[in-house]
Amino acid sequence: MTNLLDEYDGEVVPINPKRDELFGLECYEDLGQVPYTVDMAVVVVPPTIVNDVVEQAGEVGVRNLVIITAGFGETGSEGAQRERKLKEIAEEYDLNIVGPNCLGIMNTGIGMNATFGPDSPLEGNISFMSQSGAFITAVLDWALDEGIGFKDVVSLGNKAVMDSTDFIEFWDDDPETDVVIAYLESIDEGGEFIETAREASEDTPIVVLKSGRTDAAAQAASSHTGAIAGAEEAYEAGFKQSGVLRANTVQEMFDYARALSGMPLPDTEEIAIVTNAGGPGVMATDAVGDSDVLEMAEFEEDTVEALQEGIPEGGNIYNPIDVVGDADVERFEKALDIALQDPNVGSALVLSAPTAVIDYENLSDMVAEMSEKHGLPIAGCLMGGERAQKANDALSEYGIPNYFDPSQAVKAIEGLTEYANTRKEEIREPTEYDVDRDRAREILERAEEGEDNRLGVEAMELLDAYDIPTPQGDIVDSPDEAHEVAAAIDGPVVMKIVSPDILHKSDIGGVKVGVEQADVRDAYEDLITRARNYQPDANILGVQVQEMIDLDDQTETIVGMNRDPQFGPLVMFGLGGIFVEVMEDTSIRVAPVSDKEATEMVDEIQAAPLLRGARGQTPADEDEIIETIQRLSQLVTDFPAILELDINPLVAGPDGVEAVDLRLTVDTDQL
Amino acid sequence: MTNLLDEYDGEVVPINPKRDELFGLECYEDLGQVPYTVDMAVVVVPPTIVNDVVEQAGEVGVRNLVIITAGFGETGSEGAQRERKLKEIAEEYDLNIVGPNCLGIMNTGIGMNATFGPDSPLEGNISFMSQSGAFITAVLDWALDEGIGFKDVVSLGNKAVMDSTDFIEFWDDDPETDVVIAYLESIDEGGEFIETAREASEDTPIVVLKSGRTDAAAQAASSHTGAIAGAEEAYEAGFKQSGVLRANTVQEMFDYARALSGMPLPDTEEIAIVTNAGGPGVMATDAVGDSDVLEMAEFEEDTVEALQEGIPEGGNIYNPIDVVGDADVERFEKALDIALQDPNVGSALVLSAPTAVIDYENLSDMVAEMSEKHGLPIAGCLMGGERAQKANDALSEYGIPNYFDPSQAVKAIEGLTEYANTRKEEIREPTEYDVDRDRAREILERAEEGEDNRLGVEAMELLDAYDIPTPQGDIVDSPDEAHEVAAAIDGPVVMKIVSPDILHKSDIGGVKVGVEQADVRDAYEDLITRARNYQPDANILGVQVQEMIDLDDQTETIVGMNRDPQFGPLVMFGLGGIFVEVMEDTSIRVAPVSDKEATEMVDEIQAAPLLRGARGQTPADEDEIIETIQRLSQLVTDFPAILELDINPLVAGPDGVEAVDLRLTVDTDQL
Repeated sequence: MTNLLDEYDGEVVPINPKRDELFGLECYEDLGQVPYTVDMAVVVVPPTIVNDVVEQAGEVGVRNLVIITAGFGETGSEGAQRERKLKEIAEEYDLNIVGPNCLGIMNTGIGMNATFGPDSPLEGNISFMSQSGAFITAVLDWALDEGIGFKDVVSLGNKAVMDSTDFIEFWDDDPETDVVIAYLESIDEGGEFIETAREASEDTPIVVLKSGRTDAAAQAASSHTGAIAGAEEAYEAGFKQSGVLRANTVQEMFDYARALSGMPLPDTEEIAIVTNAGGPGVMATDAVGDSDVLEMAEFEEDTVEALQEGIPEGGNIYNPIDVVGDADVERFEKALDIALQDPNVGSALVLSAPTAVIDYENLSDMVAEMSEKHGLPIAGCLMGGERAQKANDALSEYGIPNYFDPSQAVKAIEGLTEYANTRKEEIREPTEYDVDRDRAREILERAEEGEDNRLGVEAMELLDAYDIPTPQGDIVDSPDEAHEVAAAIDGPVVMKIVSPDILHKSDIGGVKVGVEQADVRDAYEDLITRARNYQPDANILGVQVQEMIDLDDQTETIVGMNRDPQFGPLVMFGLGGIFVEVMEDTSIRVAPVSDKEATEMVDEIQAAPLLRGARGQTPADEDEIIETIQRLSQLVTDFPAILELDINPLVAGPDGVEAVDLRLTVDTDQL
Repeated sequence: MTNLLDEYDGEVVPINPKRDELFGLECYEDLGQVPYTVDMAVVVVPPTIVNDVVEQAGEVGVRNLVIITAGFGETGSEGAQRERKLKEIAEEYDLNIVGPNCLGIMNTGIGMNATFGPDSPLEGNISFMSQSGAFITAVLDWALDEGIGFKDVVSLGNKAVMDSTDFIEFWDDDPETDVVIAYLESIDEGGEFIETAREASEDTPIVVLKSGRTDAAAQAASSHTGAIAGAEEAYEAGFKQSGVLRANTVQEMFDYARALSGMPLPDTEEIAIVTNAGGPGVMATDAVGDSDVLEMAEFEEDTVEALQEGIPEGGNIYNPIDVVGDADVERFEKALDIALQDPNVGSALVLSAPTAVIDYENLSDMVAEMSEKHGLPIAGCLMGGERAQKANDALSEYGIPNYFDPSQAVKAIEGLTEYANTRKEEIREPTEYDVDRDRAREILERAEEGEDNRLGVEAMELLDAYDIPTPQGDIVDSPDEAHEVAAAIDGPVVMKIVSPDILHKSDIGGVKVGVEQADVRDAYEDLITRARNYQPDANILGVQVQEMIDLDDQTETIVGMNRDPQFGPLVMFGLGGIFVEVMEDTSIRVAPVSDKEATEMVDEIQAAPLLRGARGQTPADEDEIIETIQRLSQLVTDFPAILELDINPLVAGPDGVEAVDLRLTVDTDQL
C-alpha cells in the first residue's frame, strides 16, 4: 500500500473486511463493494481464500490481478491443487493474472509500484521480468546506484496464468519499452515462446538469462518455484531459433541491456578499435577473436592512407589503430572519424589509458559526437579509477556504456551486432512440402497392433509418404514374394528378418548381405528358421528385401527426433556411429525447422567436412540432407503421436540420400 | 624524479652533465662521479647514448638498471641493433636490467616509485608485472579506487635482459609478495618459464593474463613491443604445465588475485552455497556446473539432518542451501556453520538479496568469523547497490571479496581451488628411461646423406634405440635379403618401397600387403621396377619388409612432435585419420613430459573412449601409449636436432603398441 500510495498517478482503494479505513482511505469489504471500475487488483490475502477473491473479481468484472500470496504450486500437493483451481477460474472469467507467489509488478511510466519490494526503480526504457522475486530486489537496489532505469518490472512468480511469452508479446507493442530483459528458470510452452520472441525481436531486443542449465541447478530451481525446467539442449536450440540474446551471467545481461537501450545498431560485423595503449588494444583484439559474431575490421586502402597522416611513428594504422601514448583527443577523433567512414566498419571501441594529455570528459564528448555523426555504436573503455568515473557519467548521458575491462566493452558491441544480425534475417518460415498425411497416419496406426508402440523397418512407407528417399525393396512374407521383390531390384540384395522382438538381428544371423537372385528363396527360409530357433515366441513380421547400397563415396548420417516436455519435437542431426555416440557431435533444433535452420544443423557439426570431401571423397549432396531434415521435421510436427524417431543410417552420397533403417515410438492415443 | 623524491626511503641522486643542481639536489656529470654506492640507476637519456651509460654503469659497478628510454627493438633495425648491443653489455658486466621501453618499477615496501606514471599504488601483498606500461597506469588508477594494493610493480618493456621468469623467481623468495599477477604478450624461454613458475607455484600463486591469443592480436602485440608471440597452443600447454592460473580477462585476473591475496585455500573441490534468494542460488549453482574445477558439495547425512532443524519449510537443506527470504543473520550463520563442518565442503559462497531482516554489515562480520573459524574460504555475493557497498567495505577488511554477480563470486573460489590443486600435486618430474643415445645419434646422422634432412621408415631403429615398439622387419636391398627377413616373420608380410622422393607410395603400387613367403622375391623385384618406372631419378633406399599387423581390436593413434620457437619441443597425441585431420581432436604438452602429463594427454582427447572399448572393442593398453609418449618426449628433448617427428600410425591394442610408420626432419647442424 505504501509503495502504491507513494507515486502512483491513479486511485488506490484498500479492501479488507475487518476495517473501515486504511492509510487514511475508505476501506471496502470486498471487490463487489468498490464504487469505481477497478483496473487491477493486488491480492495479498491468505492462500486459502485467494481463489474466492479471484472468483469474485471475475464475477464483478475485474480482469487484471496480481497475486502476491505464496502457498501454491511451489509447496505440496494441496498448493498444487489450489493452483490448478486458480487456473480454471482464470480461464472461466478470462482473467490476466500475474503470480501467485510473486513480488508484484511495477510501471514507472505511471509511477505504479505494486510490489512489496523496498525500492522503486528509476524511469527507463528497459522492461524486466524475473522468475525470482529476490533477484528483482537485488537488481533494483543495484540499478539505482548504477543509474539504470526501467519501464516495467514484473515478478512472474509461479506463472499460473501469465508467463514470459505473454509479456514479450505485450512489450513488443509497448512504445516505451525498447529492450526486454528476463531472468527465467523455465519456459512452459517452448514452441509458442519461439514464435512470439522471434516476431518481437524484429523490433524489440530480448535478453534472457536462463538458469538451471546444469542438473544441480535445475533441481534447485524446481525446489523454489515448483517448475520443471526441461532439457538444456532444448533451451539452447529454442533460444537460437527465437532470436533472443542469451546471457550467461548477470553482468552479461546488463551489458547487453545497456548497449541495446542506448546505442544505434552496427551495420556490419566488423569493429574498429582505436587506442592510445598497446596492451589493452591487444586484449580487446583477443576479445574480438573470441567472439563468434564480431570480426576485426579490415580497412580499405583509402582508410589506411588517411590514417597514415595523423598517426606518428611507433603507432599502428591497421586495426587496432594505435594512436600512441601521447595522443590528444584531437588525434583520437581524427582516427575514429576516418575508421568510421570505412564501409567495412560497423562499430568501434575507444580504448584509453589515463595520460597527462587526455581529458576523459572531452574524450567522452567526442565519442558521443562521432557515434551520432556516423550513426554507429561506439563502446567506451576509458580505463582508470576516479578519472574513469567522470567518463562513465559523461558517456552515460549519451546512452554509451564505459568499461574498465576491454573484453567487457567488446561483449557489449557483440550483443548489439548479434541483435542487428537477427533483425537482418527473415522471420523463420518452415517449408511445407506436399506430403501424403493420410498414408502416414495409416502406417502410424499399425503401432496399435504391437505391444510396445514401436515400429521398425516395417514402417518405411512412412518415409515414402513424406518423400524421404528409401532404398528400393519391401517386406515380404513368402519365399515367392521375396523372389519377386528381388527380381525388380538390380543386382544382389540385402535381406533382414523383421521382428519388433529381435533387437540384435546380426547376432543371430538375421541379416544377409549380397544375396544373389537365385538364392533369395533359400535365404528367406533360412532367415525365418533362424529367427524361430532363436526366439520361438517372437512376432515375426516378415523379411525385408532391400537394394544393396554401394557404400563407396557414401557417409552414414543420423536424423533423429525426440519430444521435449517444454519445447516439443527436437530434431537431431549427426554423422553415424562414433560421431554421435563417442564424439557427441550433434546439432539440435526445435521442429518445425526452416530451410536456414536445417542448413545450420549440417554446418554446426564438427564432422561436416567429411560430407564435403575432406578425405578425398566426392562431396555428398548436402541439399538432400537439408531437405530430409525438413521433411522429417514436418512429419513429427504433423503427428504429435510420434514420440521418438530415428533414421539411422541416412546414407548420404553425391547422388542424394537414402534412409536405410528406421525406428520410432508412437503414442497411439494421440493419433 | 618527483615520483622518487615523493616517498622513497633512500637517497636519490640526479645525474645530468648540463646541470649542477636538479630538484634542489646536487647533480653529477655521470655515474662515475657519484660519491655513493649506487644500488640502482634509472636511465632516461636519449636512445643513442643509452648503451654508453649502461657500459659506464658496468664499469663503475652499478649492477641494477631500469631503462625507461624507448627506441630499441620495438622500432626498426637500428633499434634492434641497439638492443642486441645492450644485451651484450649486460652479459659482459652481469647487469640486471629492466626495459628498455618501459614505464619503470615500483616497490611500495620502501616507497620507491621509479616510473613516470601519475599514480603511486597502495601497499599490498600482490606483485604485478606487465608488458604494457599503459596497462599499468590504467590498473593503478583503478586499483586506488578499488582499494587494491601492491608490493612491487614492474613494467617489463622489451625484456632485453630481465624477463617474467626472473621476476617470478625473485617474488617466489620475497616474503612480502603473496600473489604474483602478470600481463604478458610473449614468453621467450618457455621451458625455463615452466620450470620456474611450477617451482614458485608451490608457495606463491601466479596469475597470468596472456594476450595475443588470436592471430590479429598477436600481430598487434608484435607491432607495439617488437616481440613475436609464438603459437597459442604452445602457451596453452605451457601454462597448464607451469601451474599458473590463466586469466582470460582483466576482471578475471583481479578476481583471482584478490581471492588469492586474502583468503585461506579450500581443502576440497566441493563448494557449499548458502542463500536467502532462490534465483541467485540457481545462478551460482550453474556457475559451479560450468566450472572444470569446482563441484557442488554433496552433504553427509549428519549435515542434512542438522540443517533440517534450522531451516523453515519452503527452504532447501540440500546444496544450494536456501535459508528463505525471511532469514536473519543468525539463520545464515547456523546454516553456514553446519555446512562448513561437513568434511566434503572445502569452500562456501554466501548469497544474499537485500531484505528487511538482513543487515549487510552484520552478515559480513559473520562471514569473516566463519571463514576464520573453519579456516576455509567464503566468497560474498551480498547483492545490491549502496547497501552492498557497505558489505564490500566490511568484507574487504577481512580480505574477502564481495560481488554483485554470483558467477563472478564462484569464479573467485574456482581460482582458489585450482591453485590449491596445483599445490597438492607433486612437482612434475619427467621420467628418464634407460635408452641408447649413441645409437639414436648414429641414425639421426643419416639425415646428412639426403638433401632435405628428412628421414622415414629407414630410421625406425631410432625408435628401437628408445624402446618404442615397432613391428618386426627390416629394410633390405636385395630379393634374397627380403626373403631372409620375411622368413623370420610369422605369416605373410607387408612390403613397401623406401624412398624419400616417393611420397604417395600406394598410388604407384609401391605397397604390397599380405605377401606370402614364396612371393617375397618377386614382390621385391616388382616394387623396385615400379618405383624406377614411376620416377627414374628417385633415390631408392630399398624395400621395407614388415610383419603384418592384425588391425582387429587395434586403434590407430598418432604421436607427433614439432618445435615451438618459445617453448621448444611440443609433443602431440591424437587418434589417427579423421580425428586429427578433421575433428582436430589432439592434446599437446611441452617436452619433457611427466607421467602425469602424458596420462592427461590421453585423457584429454575427446575420442579417448575409443581406446577404452567404446565400440565393443577390447580396450587398448593405455599404459603403453602413455609410456610411448614419454619415450618420444625424452628422445626429442635429448636431441634438439629433431625439428619435427611423427609416428603415424602408432597402432594401439590390448597387447600394447607398435609404431608402424615414421617421418622426421633433422637439423644436422645441431647434432
